[in-house]
Amino acid sequence: MSKRAFAGVVRIEYPAWVDDVVDWARTYATDADRMRVAIAVARANVEQGTGGPFGAAIFERASGKLTAVGMNAVVRLHNSTLHAEMMAFMMAEQRVGSYTLHAEGRPEHELHTSCEPCAMCLGATLWSGVRRLVTGAAREDASRIDFDEGPVFAESYRYLEDRGIEIARNVLRDEARAVLELYRTSGGTIYNG
Amino acid sequence: MSKRAFAGVVRIEYPAWVDDVVDWARTYATDADRMRVAIAVARANVEQGTGGPFGAAIFERASGKLTAVGMNAVVRLHNSTLHAEMMAFMMAEQRVGSYTLHAEGRPEHELHTSCEPCAMCLGATLWSGVRRLVTGAAREDASRIDFDEGPVFAESYRYLEDRGIEIARNVLRDEARAVLELYRTSGGTIYNG
Repeated sequence: MSKRAFAGVVRIEYPAWVDDVVDWARTYATDADRMRVAIAVARANVEQGTGGPFGAAIFERASGKLTAVGMNAVVRLHNSTLHAEMMAFMMAEQRVGSYTLHAEGRPEHELHTSCEPCAMCLGATLWSGVRRLVTGAAREDASRIDFDEGPVFAESYRYLEDRGIEIARNVLRDEARAVLELYRTSGGTIYNG
Repeated sequence: MSKRAFAGVVRIEYPAWVDDVVDWARTYATDADRMRVAIAVARANVEQGTGGPFGAAIFERASGKLTAVGMNAVVRLHNSTLHAEMMAFMMAEQRVGSYTLHAEGRPEHELHTSCEPCAMCLGATLWSGVRRLVTGAAREDASRIDFDEGPVFAESYRYLEDRGIEIARNVLRDEARAVLELYRTSGGTIYNG
C-alpha cells in the first residue's frame, strides 16, 4: 500500500487565555454560577479573537466541581466539529479517562452551554453521558446573527428527555445573547452561515 | 486563578493498521469503489479490535482522490465524539488546512460512510462542507445490534438536501451490514446502547 501524504494526527488544545478566565478550583453551586463560566469562556473567545461566540462547561452535578470547559475553535484549529460543547465533552472525557461521563460509581455530570446546541452537539450530548443540559441563549438568538443550528426539532429534545437527560433553558439568556451581539458588532466570521 | 489539574490536550490519531488497509494513491471512480474503502476500514477496526464497526471515507468528488478516512475510536481514545464520520471530517480538514471542505476554488468533496449517520454525525456533515453523503448499512441495521442513532428524522435528511447536499443510500448495504454482524458475533462493546 502507498504512504499517506499527511500525518493523520489532530491535536486539540485550549487557547492560552483559558486559565486567566476560568477558576478551576472553586465549586459552582447554582445554575447561574455554572452558566456564568460558559458565558465567560464564550466572551473571552470573542474578545481574544480565538473563535466564535460560544462557550460550554461541564460540572459534577452534586459537588459543583468544574470538570472541563470548551470554546468554539472551528477557525482556530481548522476543524468544523470543534463547537464549544464538543471540545468540552472531549476534554472532560480525557480528564476522567473514559468515553462516558456516566460511568458506574462515578459522579454524574451536566453540561452548561452559552447557546442552545446545534444538531451535532445535541447528538453528542446524548453520547457523552451528561445527565442534564442547561442552555443560555436560544436558537433564534444565534440565527439572528446568521449561525445555523441545523436539523434540531422539538422531538430532538424529547428524544434526549426520554433517555433521562434533564433539560433547562434560558438560564442567563440576556448575558449569553450579549456575547452573540458582541461577536456581530466586532465583525466575527460566520463560518457556517 | 488556579491551575488546571489536567493537560487540556486531546490527540487524535489513526490506529497503526490504517496504511495496511487503505490505498492512498489510487483513485476511486465509482460509488461502489468508494464505499468499499469505508467498509474495509470498518471491518479492519473490528478485526483489529480498535473500535466499533463503523468506517468512513472522504473523496474529491470529481477526481475520486481519497482525502481521508475515519473509523470509530470511541473506546480506543476515550472520546464519545469519535465516530467514524467525525474522525474523517477532522482528518480531511486537517489535510486541506481549512475548517471547510467546500472552500472557494477547491475541489468538492463527498462522504461515504459504512452506516447511516447518527444525529451528531449528520449535523457534522452539514458543517463539514461535503456536498454529497453516501451511506451503506441502514439505521435499522445498526439498531439490530443495539447501536442507537439518536434524534435523526426524515426531515433531518431533508434539511441537508435543502442546503444542497446530495444523499444516496444503501450502497453495498449487505457488505456493510456484514461488518455489523461480525461485531455482534465477536462480542464487541455496545458503548451507547
